[in-house]
Amino acid sequence: MSKRIVPVILSGGSGTRLWPLSRLDRPKQLIAIAGEHSLLQETALRTRDPNMFDRPVVVASAGHAEQVELQLDDIGVSPAQLIIEPEPRNTAAAIALAALVLGPGDILLVLPSDHVVKQPDAFRAAIESALPLARDGMLVTFGITPDRPETGYGYIKRGAELSPGLFQAERFVEKPDSVTAQAYLSDGGYLWNAGIFLFSADSFLDALELHAPEILFAARASIAAQRADGIYIWPDARGFGRAPGLSIDHAVMEKSDRVAVAPVAMGWSDVGSWEALHAIGEKDASGNVLTGDVVAIDSRDCLIRSDGPVIVTLGAQDLIVVATERAVLIAPRGESQRVKEAIDALQKRGK
Amino acid sequence: MSKRIVPVILSGGSGTRLWPLSRLDRPKQLIAIAGEHSLLQETALRTRDPNMFDRPVVVASAGHAEQVELQLDDIGVSPAQLIIEPEPRNTAAAIALAALVLGPGDILLVLPSDHVVKQPDAFRAAIESALPLARDGMLVTFGITPDRPETGYGYIKRGAELSPGLFQAERFVEKPDSVTAQAYLSDGGYLWNAGIFLFSADSFLDALELHAPEILFAARASIAAQRADGIYIWPDARGFGRAPGLSIDHAVMEKSDRVAVAPVAMGWSDVGSWEALHAIGEKDASGNVLTGDVVAIDSRDCLIRSDGPVIVTLGAQDLIVVATERAVLIAPRGESQRVKEAIDALQKRGK
Repeated sequence: MSKRIVPVILSGGSGTRLWPLSRLDRPKQLIAIAGEHSLLQETALRTRDPNMFDRPVVVASAGHAEQVELQLDDIGVSPAQLIIEPEPRNTAAAIALAALVLGPGDILLVLPSDHVVKQPDAFRAAIESALPLARDGMLVTFGITPDRPETGYGYIKRGAELSPGLFQAERFVEKPDSVTAQAYLSDGGYLWNAGIFLFSADSFLDALELHAPEILFAARASIAAQRADGIYIWPDARGFGRAPGLSIDHAVMEKSDRVAVAPVAMGWSDVGSWEALHAIGEKDASGNVLTGDVVAIDSRDCLIRSDGPVIVTLGAQDLIVVATERAVLIAPRGESQRVKEAIDALQKRGK
Repeated sequence: MSKRIVPVILSGGSGTRLWPLSRLDRPKQLIAIAGEHSLLQETALRTRDPNMFDRPVVVASAGHAEQVELQLDDIGVSPAQLIIEPEPRNTAAAIALAALVLGPGDILLVLPSDHVVKQPDAFRAAIESALPLARDGMLVTFGITPDRPETGYGYIKRGAELSPGLFQAERFVEKPDSVTAQAYLSDGGYLWNAGIFLFSADSFLDALELHAPEILFAARASIAAQRADGIYIWPDARGFGRAPGLSIDHAVMEKSDRVAVAPVAMGWSDVGSWEALHAIGEKDASGNVLTGDVVAIDSRDCLIRSDGPVIVTLGAQDLIVVATERAVLIAPRGESQRVKEAIDALQKRGK
């Protein structure tokens, strides 16, 4: 058992919401979306302090494992383990694999690999403040203090204060409509569910046994029959396939009465759309977020990004433009969340 | 001297108004802008009837001559001569070269190589009706009947009727402002100057001697010292360089009193901007002109063209989007004529 915290980085995602930049073979976390490093690298860099953190455990899909290893090596991070998900079974099962590989008393900091945190110091302070609760056996989730009536996230209602600045999680609520989101914002007691957790391995596994035992049994069988080679761990596929594909929220957090929420304002975004990237991006004097080979003439409030041909806009306004060598997406801001329609249309055409 | 008409196709242009599709090394006339064939090919195909036309004489720049020859060969057209401009000296000098190569009584139909004519039958009828005047020594220009108050073209005011449907050209006027353009449209006596001419070689050369003798002398010296090889004619560069760089309008048409105008409505466009291409293009049910690998979802009144990556638009409206493998242009309709600003900006950046 380590006294330090073990970052557990979940890199199993294969999102296409940032198409055409993200694709099935190059998910969002492996791309330098908002800075010099990929989101995975940024995530790892946030937990590189050896006074506080152990080397990370990464859970990744087989198809991306090599890229994950290369990208971490690039920034001088050596994972303690690289656990290969035999198939995607959502976050509860993925975290169970990591918890079973680690010691029962180890404290896990569960981190999605594809989020942006612009104030890592605030995050670190929140982790430090929540650590005693986690050591006490609580399942801690970090709740983002909302700054707008966002309808794209789930919320956590905070309950009784457990210790200064830390609260019982009273209730998890699904993505609200805009009226409800506005009410949550005014209320002040609702926080965005960021999917970031701090708990000991055994507390999590105990809660899993109580609330979603099939996931625990499947993960345990899978780990029992694992293959290992260096840092690589291949849990057995047959065992793992029996795990229900539930998120940690649905499997455990919404059911357990040992869940605490640590509110934090840390410039967080899940970068779930080009809209979101415009919101968090560094803007020029005309409100444009420009990345790559771009010439924006007389253009305002646009997000324009090229990883391929030079993009020239003339008199454009409120546009999302993203180009790779293969594809160009163009949508007014506010429409870019419909990118799935684009992918569906292309798939129909056999692209 | 041929009894038939000799098409003289001017392919010296190097326009960049349709950037990024047109470039210095691939001017507009060599691109399939509005159909299966390039504009040059379409121009040649309009004059392929051997009952009416001789084989064409093409005046081209050295840099494009090979492409010109290949493209014409592709459609089974063998030019009678391919005259290489030693340097660009505008249309008066280019036409003088062709007139000097041909016999004095030959009738020249001078055609820019980069225009669109959607009703070639109407064009042919206008040529037939103007032919007697040209044989009589008149310089005939074809004036397009305007269907909108266009400010992008010069106009010709028609004067006295010389024969049914054919008029003395009373006056050439520069591109008007929009109030004046509206007045021209209401008046009914003003026609767009399309830069298409019909005249005998000697009538043109006589007029050139009278109104711009330096051009005639320079062209004559250049042709006297020509090199020839098969269909290729290389007029001498030193002679040609002394020719003032004037358009045929400025050098001759605006000065001669032997100019006739033949009004014609033939679906003509000089395709001088992406706007113009949207105006003449075939539209889908939503008013979009789509060319190449394009998926327009919930998009209206756009021109979208790809010669490179697939373009996907989501909820776009009134946009011009043009992509090649090297560059993407995006501008609201009405702004696309500012494409020169884009080229200037890229040149500053060394592209």
